[in-house]
Amino acid sequence: MTTVDLNADLGESFGVWQLGDDEAMLGVVTSANVACGFHAGDPALLLRTCRTAAQRGVAVGAQVSYSDLAGFGRRFIDVTPEDLTADVIYQIGALQAIAHAAGTTVNYVKPHGALYNTIVSHREQAAAVAAAVAAVDAGLPVLGLSSSVFFAEASARGLRTVPEAFADRAYRPDGTLVSRRERGSVLHDPGEIAERVSSMVMSGQVAAIDGTIIPITTESICVHGDSPGAVQIATTVRERLVADGIELAAFG
Amino acid sequence: MTTVDLNADLGESFGVWQLGDDEAMLGVVTSANVACGFHAGDPALLLRTCRTAAQRGVAVGAQVSYSDLAGFGRRFIDVTPEDLTADVIYQIGALQAIAHAAGTTVNYVKPHGALYNTIVSHREQAAAVAAAVAAVDAGLPVLGLSSSVFFAEASARGLRTVPEAFADRAYRPDGTLVSRRERGSVLHDPGEIAERVSSMVMSGQVAAIDGTIIPITTESICVHGDSPGAVQIATTVRERLVADGIELAAFG
Amino acid sequence: MTTVDLNADLGESFGVWQLGDDEAMLGVVTSANVACGFHAGDPALLLRTCRTAAQRGVAVGAQVSYSDLAGFGRRFIDVTPEDLTADVIYQIGALQAIAHAAGTTVNYVKPHGALYNTIVSHREQAAAVAAAVAAVDAGLPVLGLSSSVFFAEASARGLRTVPEAFADRAYRPDGTLVSRRERGSVLHDPGEIAERVSSMVMSGQVAAIDGTIIPITTESICVHGDSPGAVQIATTVRERLVADGIELAAFG
Amino acid sequence: MTTVDLNADLGESFGVWQLGDDEAMLGVVTSANVACGFHAGDPALLLRTCRTAAQRGVAVGAQVSYSDLAGFGRRFIDVTPEDLTADVIYQIGALQAIAHAAGTTVNYVKPHGALYNTIVSHREQAAAVAAAVAAVDAGLPVLGLSSSVFFAEASARGLRTVPEAFADRAYRPDGTLVSRRERGSVLHDPGEIAERVSSMVMSGQVAAIDGTIIPITTESICVHGDSPGAVQIATTVRERLVADGIELAAFG
Repeated sequence: MTTVDLNADLGESFGVWQLGDDEAMLGVVTSANVACGFHAGDPALLLRTCRTAAQRGVAVGAQVSYSDLAGFGRRFIDVTPEDLTADVIYQIGALQAIAHAAGTTVNYVKPHGALYNTIVSHREQAAAVAAAVAAVDAGLPVLGLSSSVFFAEASARGLRTVPEAFADRAYRPDGTLVSRRERGSVLHDPGEIAERVSSMVMSGQVAAIDGTIIPITTESICVHGDSPGAVQIATTVRERLVADGIELAAFG
Repeated sequence: MTTVDLNADLGESFGVWQLGDDEAMLGVVTSANVACGFHAGDPALLLRTCRTAAQRGVAVGAQVSYSDLAGFGRRFIDVTPEDLTADVIYQIGALQAIAHAAGTTVNYVKPHGALYNTIVSHREQAAAVAAAVAAVDAGLPVLGLSSSVFFAEASARGLRTVPEAFADRAYRPDGTLVSRRERGSVLHDPGEIAERVSSMVMSGQVAAIDGTIIPITTESICVHGDSPGAVQIATTVRERLVADGIELAAFG
Repeated sequence: MTTVDLNADLGESFGVWQLGDDEAMLGVVTSANVACGFHAGDPALLLRTCRTAAQRGVAVGAQVSYSDLAGFGRRFIDVTPEDLTADVIYQIGALQAIAHAAGTTVNYVKPHGALYNTIVSHREQAAAVAAAVAAVDAGLPVLGLSSSVFFAEASARGLRTVPEAFADRAYRPDGTLVSRRERGSVLHDPGEIAERVSSMVMSGQVAAIDGTIIPITTESICVHGDSPGAVQIATTVRERLVADGIELAAFG
Repeated sequence: MTTVDLNADLGESFGVWQLGDDEAMLGVVTSANVACGFHAGDPALLLRTCRTAAQRGVAVGAQVSYSDLAGFGRRFIDVTPEDLTADVIYQIGALQAIAHAAGTTVNYVKPHGALYNTIVSHREQAAAVAAAVAAVDAGLPVLGLSSSVFFAEASARGLRTVPEAFADRAYRPDGTLVSRRERGSVLHDPGEIAERVSSMVMSGQVAAIDGTIIPITTESICVHGDSPGAVQIATTVRERLVADGIELAAFG
């Protein structure tokens, strides 16, 4: 039986400010990338999110980021590798204690936003993040982009790498994502997205934006938690996968 | 043989800004209360401080605080118990990962500044901090003031409480500290301080500011790490204790 | 003809996080209490809010706060008067430049949240805020609670004080607000609220929570901008006042 | 008579953390680039710095930065032009109010650290900063590097540009600075620095690191305020210029 994980970014509210519908999403996904306070997520919110995840049997991952609340971690920061390693260790540890207090554990690490995008190709920062994960626990898998420098650095340190595919993002023929600034980069129709995800999981292939059929390795599918219609899309994807006989389970 | 611990606040620099002489102090104390980033201490600095502590065999404690860099954690904040518990869990976890990456562990928790003073008597916040420590690890001792509500709340949760005495602060006849705003509240002469500490440890008594002899329970002596002459005072205290045949060792 | 001002807290989003419907509220109120970045409001959002206010002819006030994004300025902080004065000067100046760039000016100052509540009775902090406003521009009015120590301190420095009444909050017989934690402290029915506001403005009186009729001086009515139904309540109040022949205009 | 300005970065302490000797430097320089809270400088410190500057007759400039306390503004951040413009307006306004309360005014704007370096060549961010200054007050000069894109963008908006030279930094033959990472990039000998500065001011030329004589336009000389020996170097430069009959005065 084919098994796949469904992950989404959660715990991204802050203080009075709400973002996304964590309660609903935790009824759909199998892995929650929980913010660690650097781009979103005050500690009390993180604790509530981890508690709900524990109750629902959803795996918790540490969604580590540049330190940038005002920019939601979406702006590249030219931080030194030494500082970045320490920042990532700090974030993982903070969420580990929060998760423990909530009756669960941190099962993996997933970089967020600009850091995610940067370490696809920026070797120094990729190595700094990989070194941080290894320093905390060499048994922690990392979730990310299959062809990234980050995965190369993580593998070199003996970390398990878990490649993810994006449910609603268009791919280029070389396997990278089409930039959000370009037309057609984001899919919106729940049925179309669900059909595409099911096909990716079962065939190991996806049609790139120009129609080229490319291979795609997928242990986890990333669905968005905060966009309009996020819950509906995630639910549709989940239902379609189940209908197609694919088992949904955290990769841990 | 009588044994006592010598603790100081360390890791309190931030970014380009230096505070105290951690390098020197780590050659003197047996326990380092390392800041956790909420009142001081960027992650990279904390990692360096923990590494040096590990090399010198100095025990590491988590010095948890209100979230207040601008005020250095010295201002009371009327945070809710729910938020405070989560903030403290977050900080302990962050430092645990940093300490682990540095080859050591967090051995105890000590509240900082205004939080330390507040939970001497503020039951809700005292309970919130005690609950946080218990949620992270019920085996973690807390370091603080013997007669505090915090210790009562910690004991009620099964936590070990380690009472400390202050090397350079005057006491009132009821065992509380004389406010820093009053004359004679802080001692400055290294020899006098060392003499007093040695006497406290050996006799279990100290002379209050009015001359009354009061009992004082002392498993750890707090010396300051950032005041002028801090290193000299700490060194003088250490040498005097050693000369008097008292063993210096972390309480862990 | 009777004239009254209608004010609401606006510019309280931050980064990706939205709060309230500024666009709609700026079509209803005559004065916008715009956040200054210490409890909410990143600079780019503040600039957009001030631009819209300028286009709609809505007066802009500086909504100054304790420095506390995580707590949305709702937690008392025991800041020194010296620090508080400087913090308030800084915030007013920041918004003055933003308002100027948007083609308008800061017309008044209104403290926010815990600071608003604290300086009803805390003389040192009240004096610190009043001193800050006077230091920036002694011609700037302050908006607040009629019977507050803050107004006494502001008047003593020659500042104009503009008393406000709350559209949806119950009053005690002594003219103070019923705490939000008590039953009946907040009114929810738009029609009832509008009726009450119109009556307050025309009669200079309001029924306290126990039925006592108390005097109330009202140059401005505060409506909430971020609660559920905020826009509808504000619109209903505005329409009722207009229907009753009361002119709506900024107090400037 | 030849006149030149002497500027230094000041107001760069934060909370309990001290940096540099503002008191001494304000007895030497003619212009103080005062931090605005984004990379350093809490409001109370800024107020004290501006008061001392006012007493000493030292001109105040707004030293604007990326928002990055932990990195002291020394890390490039890929902020959007819209956000950067608003951030800079906010900072200038904050310091204008602080300066006004201190009995002085903001006379000019100087970008700090990574922002300074970035807008030498990054057109979008350079334009964003220039637009911010123009939006606040088109009469405010900007202090910076003569050959920068920032100066081109500032001039295009009608701003006065004031070129500065660095007292202790080596130049390349093309007029740019030798990177701090290279040998010989920073001069340390006070006498040599003073000799070089005097020669630059009088001849309009300087020897580049390879010996080439290059032209240098200098209305202001930047001396460092926080390096070891900063006060001594600045004092030596000042005394040498005075001895050579050069008048020291703010460019305002």
